[in-house]
Amino acid sequence: MPEIRHALSIKRADDFAQWYQAVVSEAQLAEESGVRGCMVIKPWGYGIWERIQRLLDDRIKAKGHENCYFPLLIPLANFEREAEHVEGFAKEMAVVTHHRLIADGKGGLIPDPEAKLEEPLVIRPTSETIIGDAMARWIQSWRDLPLLTNQWANVMRWEMRTRMFLRTSEFLWQEGHTAHETAEQAKAHTMTMLEVYRTCAEEDLALPVIAGEKPENERFPGAVETWSIEAMMQDGKALQAGTSHYLGTNFAKASGIQFQDREGSQQFCHTTSWGVSTRMIGGVIMTHGDDDGLRVPPRIAPWQVVILPMLRDKPEDAELLDYCEGLRATIAGRHALGEPVRVLLDTKPGKAAAKRWDWVRKGAPVIIEVGARDMENGVVSLLRRDALWDVETGKPAFQSPTREVAGQTIGGLLGDIQHALFTEATERRDANIVRDISDMDGLRAFYSGDAQFPGWVEVQWSKPTGAALDKVVEQLKELKLTIRNVPMDGPAADGPCIFTGDPAVERIYVAKAY
Amino acid sequence: MPEIRHALSIKRADDFAQWYQAVVSEAQLAEESGVRGCMVIKPWGYGIWERIQRLLDDRIKAKGHENCYFPLLIPLANFEREAEHVEGFAKEMAVVTHHRLIADGKGGLIPDPEAKLEEPLVIRPTSETIIGDAMARWIQSWRDLPLLTNQWANVMRWEMRTRMFLRTSEFLWQEGHTAHETAEQAKAHTMTMLEVYRTCAEEDLALPVIAGEKPENERFPGAVETWSIEAMMQDGKALQAGTSHYLGTNFAKASGIQFQDREGSQQFCHTTSWGVSTRMIGGVIMTHGDDDGLRVPPRIAPWQVVILPMLRDKPEDAELLDYCEGLRATIAGRHALGEPVRVLLDTKPGKAAAKRWDWVRKGAPVIIEVGARDMENGVVSLLRRDALWDVETGKPAFQSPTREVAGQTIGGLLGDIQHALFTEATERRDANIVRDISDMDGLRAFYSGDAQFPGWVEVQWSKPTGAALDKVVEQLKELKLTIRNVPMDGPAADGPCIFTGDPAVERIYVAKAY
Repeated sequence: MPEIRHALSIKRADDFAQWYQAVVSEAQLAEESGVRGCMVIKPWGYGIWERIQRLLDDRIKAKGHENCYFPLLIPLANFEREAEHVEGFAKEMAVVTHHRLIADGKGGLIPDPEAKLEEPLVIRPTSETIIGDAMARWIQSWRDLPLLTNQWANVMRWEMRTRMFLRTSEFLWQEGHTAHETAEQAKAHTMTMLEVYRTCAEEDLALPVIAGEKPENERFPGAVETWSIEAMMQDGKALQAGTSHYLGTNFAKASGIQFQDREGSQQFCHTTSWGVSTRMIGGVIMTHGDDDGLRVPPRIAPWQVVILPMLRDKPEDAELLDYCEGLRATIAGRHALGEPVRVLLDTKPGKAAAKRWDWVRKGAPVIIEVGARDMENGVVSLLRRDALWDVETGKPAFQSPTREVAGQTIGGLLGDIQHALFTEATERRDANIVRDISDMDGLRAFYSGDAQFPGWVEVQWSKPTGAALDKVVEQLKELKLTIRNVPMDGPAADGPCIFTGDPAVERIYVAKAY
Repeated sequence: MPEIRHALSIKRADDFAQWYQAVVSEAQLAEESGVRGCMVIKPWGYGIWERIQRLLDDRIKAKGHENCYFPLLIPLANFEREAEHVEGFAKEMAVVTHHRLIADGKGGLIPDPEAKLEEPLVIRPTSETIIGDAMARWIQSWRDLPLLTNQWANVMRWEMRTRMFLRTSEFLWQEGHTAHETAEQAKAHTMTMLEVYRTCAEEDLALPVIAGEKPENERFPGAVETWSIEAMMQDGKALQAGTSHYLGTNFAKASGIQFQDREGSQQFCHTTSWGVSTRMIGGVIMTHGDDDGLRVPPRIAPWQVVILPMLRDKPEDAELLDYCEGLRATIAGRHALGEPVRVLLDTKPGKAAAKRWDWVRKGAPVIIEVGARDMENGVVSLLRRDALWDVETGKPAFQSPTREVAGQTIGGLLGDIQHALFTEATERRDANIVRDISDMDGLRAFYSGDAQFPGWVEVQWSKPTGAALDKVVEQLKELKLTIRNVPMDGPAADGPCIFTGDPAVERIYVAKAY
């Protein structure tokens, strides 16, 4: 079979990390900004984020949440209060100390010593404490509950080693914060939002995920329970794609979030918080990308169909453009996956072949080229990005439907592509979960074996806590492994704990992780 | 006629500034955050912003722009470069100097002296320079032009005196930045975006605005031309609601934004920038608010219709809720102003009357109350927020359509309300523009006269520049007046300049302003 000449110069199998950077760059998703740890999200990358935002926001609102906006800057006192309550307090944060610049007399600018803030302010690493303050003001009685709040915002955590989308100092996210009358209601809401994340990941981003509870050592500092959705990347590593926390009354006590209950006495609220971020785009890249660039699932593709007329700077171009515009209008009038199809007629200057490969690398789900001969024959040349190559010939697998058929069938085609990407990822994930390892030697052998991209191992454990858990974490750390989560719907344990030999109580996933 | 008991304790005529604060608070739009100059935007206020965003974003995208995201933090060097080029450089900015907090040993936290940044970073007051850097990277040839970029973001300018929505240290906005081959194209684009703003203000926010060019002294620093839309508030003052700038090659030269033209030689791009912000919500309040709170134009109302069942904690409630749910479902299936109607069935606990007045103060366009007797008669009690009172009785002007008629006519009703608010504001604005003042004494007399809320004066001027303009500005400043703009479609000048006595060349608006 002929060799395929892929659109990227580096393949996943060659160097997965380098391949990732190549996709981010070649698919024009993002680039370095020149500001340490902060990226510029380019139109195609930001367009994907806008789609994720729109779909997830609809899901969040459908559960009764309202969006608010809270200040970017948070007083030091809020963190001092938190630092008292929370052991794992993260201190790497951007601190604002001055409110004015002045000339230094040498052509430069410096913070004006006269304009030093009495109390420094911190750029929000999360809005937990400032939203807690607001909740304390807004909630008086049980009638004000549940309070269901969400915010879309930029946050900042000073990171030493950054990687586009996966770990950047500034990132974009949504953070939901809710307050409830009872523990049961707050716990139920924690699970409701975990399910919202699971559905969004699987139905919108075509990312198969495992929903489950994080072990004690992986809990959000101050949380009573932390739940996550975990996705497997093509290099076998896990990516935590979203978390949902039940916080008990811990944060309510720190912020004074109290209410008068139905019997008239003062109670602390039970609160939850949950968030997903631009990190999910990293998950989309490492799940759906291939050696030709990104493949964007149709539901989150800014443009689902791109039409490329093969213009030749000749008078005949006008007729060809008409022909393409007819197709564009037909497609724009169709629906796919419950929404009008997003179709672009790309008439920017440039060679048709170069533009085709640009859209291949960007991962537009369907690319339709139309040349003069296509027009004569009443057809178009259609490429499915998820099935790009004809392996027999080593050439792009163009189909040649009539223009009418291409227009009429586009909705079903996009649905098929969404489904195919999810199925492919699910099958790969399932094929890379190992369940027959029952001792540490086996685990060690598996991860030091021949497999270039070893996947996840499901093991049984006795759920040790405290110092016993620390020992387990330490053992795993030596193998660069972590416990991902305890899957919600896993089968019951039926053997010994892989770490302690005691009877196991549940099954957990261990894996290397981002 | 009986006296009306309004829903706010303070009236516009009593103290406009206090009234404004009362609306912000009583309509639950925003509140102080405890962080100096930063507000918390509450669900109803943020919901209005989300509607403005969605509608304006659609308009911006329809003109071919793509959204991006650029870093929050900007290196000092960018401002040093700008400071060289721009005289009116604003220096009040939040400066980040450290990236870590540590315990001070006394229970508090301080910026870690070990974690001082080599070069301080500034929280963006605007992204002009960092987007300029990106444009310089992205543009090589005329084929890359026009480059049409937009960003939705938070920005920060340290303000000494703040007022909710109108002037806050942190605010939300969109900033568009575009690069073009020629001056003509860039100027045309400046006007295109001014027209987008005018349309958004008038059609979406129901704010009648005057589009025109700002005088030289009011130009954005570094701009060749600055255009604005100006709205008249109910106290007669002007609010600049949006600006569009033609920047010539000034910013392209500062950032090195060059392209190879069609003849193969290197040229600097002609750039534009334009923005609107959460300030527009202040304009909505001061245009459509009344002594009962806010009146939200239907196109930007988060909920256009609120249904309030008069529940009595009795078994009959179930039937009443069914009756209301039937109405809700009917209304949700209708369209108004080109979109599905946004309708809320409000079943939160609380007394019906208290809930009604909450929604009156928030300004939901249509409030529908349904009690047991309404249900028996097959009707509902419907209140138009824009025509709240029956002046004959001094009571709320409830209508009693059948449930079926209420459902069927809702689309037209909301359209009527949108139109009525715009018409009312336009008529008030037009009635408060004075055109018969031709000398400075007249101007002085007008603004020191009996009118509580004097409006705008259209005068003719000779368009002085430089020092002569400074003198005019100084004269106006003594009267607390500013030149708003030169309206685009004003009649030609036909008399002497009010300031210099020379023959006038155009007409301008002068006014007090926010």
